[in-house]
Amino acid sequence: MAPRPVRPARITMPVSGSSPTLHRRARRAPRRFLERSLRGSGQVMFMNNPYTGLLNFVALGWGAWAGGTTWTVVLGAALGVLVATGAAQALRVERAARDAGLYGFNGLLVGAGIPTFLAPTPLMWAVLVFACAVSAGVTRALAELLRPWQVPGLTFPFVLTTWLVLLAADPLPGLATAALPQAGLAAPAVAASVAFGLADWVRAVLASVAQVFFVDDAVSGALFLLALALQSRRAAVLGAAGALLAVAAALALGAERAPVVHGLWGYSAVLTAVAVGGVFLPPGGRTLALCAIATLFTVLVQGATLTLAGTLGVPALTFPFVLGTWLVLLARGRSESA
Amino acid sequence: MAPRPVRPARITMPVSGSSPTLHRRARRAPRRFLERSLRGSGQVMFMNNPYTGLLNFVALGWGAWAGGTTWTVVLGAALGVLVATGAAQALRVERAARDAGLYGFNGLLVGAGIPTFLAPTPLMWAVLVFACAVSAGVTRALAELLRPWQVPGLTFPFVLTTWLVLLAADPLPGLATAALPQAGLAAPAVAASVAFGLADWVRAVLASVAQVFFVDDAVSGALFLLALALQSRRAAVLGAAGALLAVAAALALGAERAPVVHGLWGYSAVLTAVAVGGVFLPPGGRTLALCAIATLFTVLVQGATLTLAGTLGVPALTFPFVLGTWLVLLARGRSESA
Amino acid sequence: MAPRPVRPARITMPVSGSSPTLHRRARRAPRRFLERSLRGSGQVMFMNNPYTGLLNFVALGWGAWAGGTTWTVVLGAALGVLVATGAAQALRVERAARDAGLYGFNGLLVGAGIPTFLAPTPLMWAVLVFACAVSAGVTRALAELLRPWQVPGLTFPFVLTTWLVLLAADPLPGLATAALPQAGLAAPAVAASVAFGLADWVRAVLASVAQVFFVDDAVSGALFLLALALQSRRAAVLGAAGALLAVAAALALGAERAPVVHGLWGYSAVLTAVAVGGVFLPPGGRTLALCAIATLFTVLVQGATLTLAGTLGVPALTFPFVLGTWLVLLARGRSESA
Repeated sequence: MAPRPVRPARITMPVSGSSPTLHRRARRAPRRFLERSLRGSGQVMFMNNPYTGLLNFVALGWGAWAGGTTWTVVLGAALGVLVATGAAQALRVERAARDAGLYGFNGLLVGAGIPTFLAPTPLMWAVLVFACAVSAGVTRALAELLRPWQVPGLTFPFVLTTWLVLLAADPLPGLATAALPQAGLAAPAVAASVAFGLADWVRAVLASVAQVFFVDDAVSGALFLLALALQSRRAAVLGAAGALLAVAAALALGAERAPVVHGLWGYSAVLTAVAVGGVFLPPGGRTLALCAIATLFTVLVQGATLTLAGTLGVPALTFPFVLGTWLVLLARGRSESA
Repeated sequence: MAPRPVRPARITMPVSGSSPTLHRRARRAPRRFLERSLRGSGQVMFMNNPYTGLLNFVALGWGAWAGGTTWTVVLGAALGVLVATGAAQALRVERAARDAGLYGFNGLLVGAGIPTFLAPTPLMWAVLVFACAVSAGVTRALAELLRPWQVPGLTFPFVLTTWLVLLAADPLPGLATAALPQAGLAAPAVAASVAFGLADWVRAVLASVAQVFFVDDAVSGALFLLALALQSRRAAVLGAAGALLAVAAALALGAERAPVVHGLWGYSAVLTAVAVGGVFLPPGGRTLALCAIATLFTVLVQGATLTLAGTLGVPALTFPFVLGTWLVLLARGRSESA
Repeated sequence: MAPRPVRPARITMPVSGSSPTLHRRARRAPRRFLERSLRGSGQVMFMNNPYTGLLNFVALGWGAWAGGTTWTVVLGAALGVLVATGAAQALRVERAARDAGLYGFNGLLVGAGIPTFLAPTPLMWAVLVFACAVSAGVTRALAELLRPWQVPGLTFPFVLTTWLVLLAADPLPGLATAALPQAGLAAPAVAASVAFGLADWVRAVLASVAQVFFVDDAVSGALFLLALALQSRRAAVLGAAGALLAVAAALALGAERAPVVHGLWGYSAVLTAVAVGGVFLPPGGRTLALCAIATLFTVLVQGATLTLAGTLGVPALTFPFVLGTWLVLLARGRSESA
């Protein structure tokens, strides 16, 4: 995901330059294109590292093999990052951002999200390719829109593009829905007493990490954490801690047990914790405190987005992460940079 | 509609100065006011040309005579452009924009839109006049809001103002609804096999053009295209081609046949195609490719807006055009202007 | 509320400096903290005056005693302004804004709003404290976001934070709802012939003022007006006149009688009238005209927000005031400042 190269002194992890290259002498375009795409996969979790990106696909593959997602989703993810990376090239965006994979990760998520919710017809594949290409344009438009505040677009291009496609599926039955939540008016849920053992906690935390990629599987979650640790152990620890805090908060606030175990209350918090705690702010105690507050705020926004998106019949996606992280980056204000 | 005089070198059609004047020596205020209002009518389709604006009213009149709209709507449109043009004068906005009709076209659309959906009571006329005047203020506020990006406000003032009035009509039964869509939760439509003959195609394309003005009539659509061609044959061809592409895409994606024939899947695309292909980007192959992509994206957004607005019980209006065109203008970024 | 110290020449009431201080020699931190919090209470109505803030709490207390609200809400309001004022200190925001109470008034409203709609459980109090602290961060983030336009954030941080908490209460039954409106699809109301006597008018106008603080009581409304008049008689007159105009407009447009009497159609208009007529524009006939238009526009937006928020099952809060006032401040444009 997108540590856009602004305020470079504040970015605490190596974003470019010092990160390993797959083929040091690879001058050939196809290899460079592949490396950019793998970095795009790594950037879903802010890692400008092709090996992280590769391991993410191993985790996706494990998820499909273990039944936590489908091979269609894995194929969509691969296609998505390739198409978006190519579209950014056609759009002639600045090369540094392309090289760092910053135009690929939203495409990967669009490509994984569409077959998670729509049935895999030929028409779906056509719309998927179109939407992944458009996501590169949305990424660029959003970068332009956010320029006055020097705040990154994060996964908002993915959220916006995927919401548009899923909302359009209702009046366009050529896009057959497979697993979309049914639209329903907001109604208070009933609190149930919940037994939640150690195994549930472990599964909920790891599934939260995996659900960033639409995978519902604990082993995949562990592999995604490992991929993070390849580049930054700090980020891996923060991601797991963010998931733990989100699971605890959701349970304390009475959330239904099943979605918690499946990681649906934690995936946005994982991203917020890594972004706020490990990527965009300087390390230190103050950052850790802000990171905890932002993670808890993300859980509240997750609940609000569930109600809002549920009324329209679409999933929440990672909008809570985007709102929570934008809030912190904007609230930080100018005082710190002065 | 609004090629706000930014980046003048990129605007490919004469926006001011070189366009014909109705009365070359008309010094008298009423005549100048009338000319400004007619230019406002022309600007619905980006044409700074009073004859285009006049012919648009002929097309509206034909639509009312043929039953594709009502005389109330025609009267509302006329009142709307006059009121908004007058309100802009009272607001003391910059004269060049007023002279070019850039403060009138949103008023015309508000004035046509309100009696399309609400019953023509005296209270409706009072609210219509108020809303058309407010639309000039919204136009100016939006211009101020968009100033950092030098992007035009397009028809968003019309969309916002009309949505507010129609949403307010529910708890304010003094505003009796006539033809508002019933609010309903999103539910997947059923795809039906569709016979769509040549006559259907022609009607769907021409009705798409006419629906920009809330008219459901093919002959009116042809007259609106003729009005476009008065100023720019390129724009007329792009508008028709945009409608054709949108109709084809909607049918391919399984849209219900009746709304397609009535132009309800094409009207936003008409505006996007003219704006992207003929007004805001320099002519060329790259622009044509962007124009096709933006038009297809507009069809997707049309579907998404139908779901969103349908949940609230209001029509989609031209929001898909606004979003699609803003996306292209922002995504174009700084590289082209450098 | 927030006359952020921009364009100081245009602010017509003394915002800082000349306003009375509670303890002229109070060097001790607790006293200064209390004074800041009382100014925060005064800023709900734009008054940088601790005595206004104190009298507001008297009015809140009267409301609780008379049954127009609960002591829980009064306690929440007090806690809210203290927590938000403290959080702004922890965030190290600019001292002048903190001293003027500009980081407290949104916290007060969040603290009053949450127990108005949620049941007072220990968990609610924890979320209330968290949300009031977060409101200071949202206030700062919004100030940063609005910096290019030099427009104040008004009560939008309160609206956003409270909407998020109330929307999150549905899937999080640990937050038990007490008085949330039931989510329902938009449906046209039926106009009823309404007898509305002088006592109804007086009650409706005064309750509109009191509902700014979630109080449904006429005497409280009179006390809130008195608190306004302590600092600015002009503001008190404008507030009452704005409520009167809003009540008249809502009745003319057929609004149901009960919510009008309880002040639910007027509270946003009170704030718009004071903001536009008495705080952010220079005094004069043009400002009065804009004030009347903005107040009527706020009534329309109130209706639209009722439909939108009602579909989601949350209250409208003061969003109509925010939108109406932003519109005027943006539409005013640069011509007046030139």
